[in-house]
Amino acid sequence: MCLPGTIEAVRENGSAVSRRAVLAGGGAAALAALVPSGAEAHRRRRHKRHGKVVDLTHTFTAGFPVYTGNAPAKRTLTTIPANGFYKQEWTFDEHSGTHLDAPGHFIAGGRTTPELSARELVVPVVVIDISKRAKRDPDAEVTADDLRRYERRYGRIPKDALVAMDSGWAAKLNTPAYKGADSGGTYHFPGFGLSAIEYLIDRRRGAAIGVDTLSLDNGPSTTFIVHSTWLGADNYGIENLAGLDRLPASGATATVGVVPWDAGSGGPARVLASY
Amino acid sequence: MCLPGTIEAVRENGSAVSRRAVLAGGGAAALAALVPSGAEAHRRRRHKRHGKVVDLTHTFTAGFPVYTGNAPAKRTLTTIPANGFYKQEWTFDEHSGTHLDAPGHFIAGGRTTPELSARELVVPVVVIDISKRAKRDPDAEVTADDLRRYERRYGRIPKDALVAMDSGWAAKLNTPAYKGADSGGTYHFPGFGLSAIEYLIDRRRGAAIGVDTLSLDNGPSTTFIVHSTWLGADNYGIENLAGLDRLPASGATATVGVVPWDAGSGGPARVLASY
Repeated sequence: MCLPGTIEAVRENGSAVSRRAVLAGGGAAALAALVPSGAEAHRRRRHKRHGKVVDLTHTFTAGFPVYTGNAPAKRTLTTIPANGFYKQEWTFDEHSGTHLDAPGHFIAGGRTTPELSARELVVPVVVIDISKRAKRDPDAEVTADDLRRYERRYGRIPKDALVAMDSGWAAKLNTPAYKGADSGGTYHFPGFGLSAIEYLIDRRRGAAIGVDTLSLDNGPSTTFIVHSTWLGADNYGIENLAGLDRLPASGATATVGVVPWDAGSGGPARVLASY
Repeated sequence: MCLPGTIEAVRENGSAVSRRAVLAGGGAAALAALVPSGAEAHRRRRHKRHGKVVDLTHTFTAGFPVYTGNAPAKRTLTTIPANGFYKQEWTFDEHSGTHLDAPGHFIAGGRTTPELSARELVVPVVVIDISKRAKRDPDAEVTADDLRRYERRYGRIPKDALVAMDSGWAAKLNTPAYKGADSGGTYHFPGFGLSAIEYLIDRRRGAAIGVDTLSLDNGPSTTFIVHSTWLGADNYGIENLAGLDRLPASGATATVGVVPWDAGSGGPARVLASY
């Protein structure tokens, strides 16, 4: 909402807005004197709770890397000292940042974002760590053998789980290695392989797969068979996940907070996991 | 991501894309014959789980009602039969749909969306039902007395809770009564009153307040004192919540899935509650 003329909150434009760069108007300064600073109030309020919450989401930035053919997100800063509030306007393709691919993204007649049930968005999360292999081979894929190996160690992958690939790629964001484009323009980053997808569809009925890279298929894919097979079985995928190395391999629950974009082919999501 | 030339998924433009309106190209039709339809696969996969998940989020639509001064969200449909995928581009003000107000929206130097911790976004949710009073008085406010009455019945409001007002307004979305503008243009809808805010800040240290209306302050407010006081104490708010009537008054946990918009003054969120 919009507050006409009471508090001035002016921010400088830039890709990262520094709190030090904020110029306070008189109203805000007077108010700031009455209340504890942000950091103080936050510390005071913190208390012991059961469980941990891990953020699996990259900050949604203008210029976040996108797949060929998608325009990068951009924003317009709305700085209105006269109106006393600070806000931004965003323009982006649904497949930007940490985001969901709904079945309808690839499949004619497939479900769109608001058609995924709330129940499908709160799911057990299973982390498949292929980071060692991905270090040697940037085109590494999660295979059915990886899933069997996981199950021997951690137990059966639950029904309706989010099966997430941790390839170590989240740390490469904002470096050329994230896309890994070679001189011919072909991408090189890990993804799921078809054998893993078939195993999950035929034997485990997973709800979702997630990757810490730009695409469910690995970088060099030209068939996008993982997208079409997985979404074609009425499941969803998540791309550009972060923080998977901070999760246990088994036992956490993920809440996939995708904004229910009307008729969405997917869209930006906040993914939080608790254990 | 983007799939060049394998599957055609064309959708008609419109505010609600009908699945029947989808025209399938050859690739998609062939694939559809191999996999169960969306609804079938979904039914098969469903199984008994512990607990319920309630969606507290309105579908994010183009033209969702916004406060004076904010441009309504809009979208551009990207229908590229030759490329074989379906997606949309969105443009919107951060204060659209079911969305969060971060401290930095009103407070110079206040925290922005990515600065809220994951821990603050997974919180007990308390529902304050003022729907009977709001039926008689569209300007009704949640007062400190309402909170004391709640506590006598349901026990103490936990620290770091999301305290959510259920005024019955979610059902009025897409009707003139949602804003309740009178002939002079003044809005009439319920919100929080200052006494409730002071009670929560001074005695309970709540993390968040939520409303099922367009603003934390009630419709006729011109001072926006609830916004400035609550955000000024380094707390966040949520506007345009849905589904609160499906939650118990006490005992549920909300996950506030706000996309971490870079330097965000708040922004669209998926809010899911479990109990």
